[in-house]
Amino acid sequence: MPKSRKTDISISVIKRLPRYYRFVGELIKQGVVRSSSGDLAEKMSLTASQIRQDLNCFGGFGQQGYGYNLIELRKEIGKILGVDCGYKTVLFGAGNLGKAIASHMNFEKYGCELIGIFDSDLRKTNERVANLKIMPVSDMERFFEEKKPEIAILCIPKASAQELADKLVAMGIKAFWNFSHYDLKVSHKDIIVENAHLGDSLMMLSYGLTNSNNEEAEEE
Amino acid sequence: MPKSRKTDISISVIKRLPRYYRFVGELIKQGVVRSSSGDLAEKMSLTASQIRQDLNCFGGFGQQGYGYNLIELRKEIGKILGVDCGYKTVLFGAGNLGKAIASHMNFEKYGCELIGIFDSDLRKTNERVANLKIMPVSDMERFFEEKKPEIAILCIPKASAQELADKLVAMGIKAFWNFSHYDLKVSHKDIIVENAHLGDSLMMLSYGLTNSNNEEAEEE
Repeated sequence: MPKSRKTDISISVIKRLPRYYRFVGELIKQGVVRSSSGDLAEKMSLTASQIRQDLNCFGGFGQQGYGYNLIELRKEIGKILGVDCGYKTVLFGAGNLGKAIASHMNFEKYGCELIGIFDSDLRKTNERVANLKIMPVSDMERFFEEKKPEIAILCIPKASAQELADKLVAMGIKAFWNFSHYDLKVSHKDIIVENAHLGDSLMMLSYGLTNSNNEEAEEE
Repeated sequence: MPKSRKTDISISVIKRLPRYYRFVGELIKQGVVRSSSGDLAEKMSLTASQIRQDLNCFGGFGQQGYGYNLIELRKEIGKILGVDCGYKTVLFGAGNLGKAIASHMNFEKYGCELIGIFDSDLRKTNERVANLKIMPVSDMERFFEEKKPEIAILCIPKASAQELADKLVAMGIKAFWNFSHYDLKVSHKDIIVENAHLGDSLMMLSYGLTNSNNEEAEEE
């Protein structure tokens, strides 16, 4: 049984949790049922002591001399991450990226349920994506009153992102998955924003290549 | 004129560069031509001293009493990031997500040029995405010899990701933008991997909601 959780867990530990969840899931698929922190460390390119420290923050799941029961570990990490919560999720902006996110992501696996897609372009209304009909923005109010979604995915141009976000917060949205290349300002501290700034991510590659090239040039 | 750059810059500073680049670009678009670190700080929700420290790592661009010349600042950050380098980029996996990435991303803005798309499904061969014909994997060798791409975007299922990555490294790929839900193992330390694990990102939202709900429950 896991011990009680620490209350002040650093964000870097929390950010590693999805990775633990993925890795442990992979091992279980391969038929592995238990693993020492050393084994896990090797597979995840971390150190055994880091793994023990990380998992200890959440109450520790290992037993001395036995290691981790992977099925239990995965269940517990999943519980911490909330992967069974099925948070009601709506997506805004059914362009290329929005449609791909809607169809590609296995939302239920990650604790969410996609229940609505909105687009301001009326020509898209009633087009189907991921088994959902695209709705016009004018349907938002009625839909929100009835369904009370908690997560909004923003795949809209950055120029409209802040205005929409403000409106959505007022309508009860508690978390944003933000693909608009814009850093949302949210007035309530409890609103969660997870940015997926793909352009920033791509620039990190250009940075890496440019600067490794520079280093080579300097060495010559 | 910027002073010389530090050689050991922390990864967290580097990761903030794309954001500086974006923000400064926005300000220029709004007609702003210079800005103090205090102004920038307020807009970016950072502190003025952090901005000064960050930009100092790269040689410093400000002038006492004048602030930053934004056009010059953007040019210099762009140069550091390599946004004018046009790294030749190929994409693997023309499913929903791959196609959306190919059509949605403004590659040239981020230092890359998308020059080829491959898919193992022969029924997709010659289909056009982002003005490129999808190629069969059998064309890879010829294409790589001729074009020498440096960046590979992986939008393929995780089961095939490692095998393809190994092959691509052997063929000269130097950097991966990895959308496969799998942490690539690369043998050369100089190979750059930028993960875009969308599932992990989505789980951070579920985590946030679950744990803010828990805290509320505990407070009651």
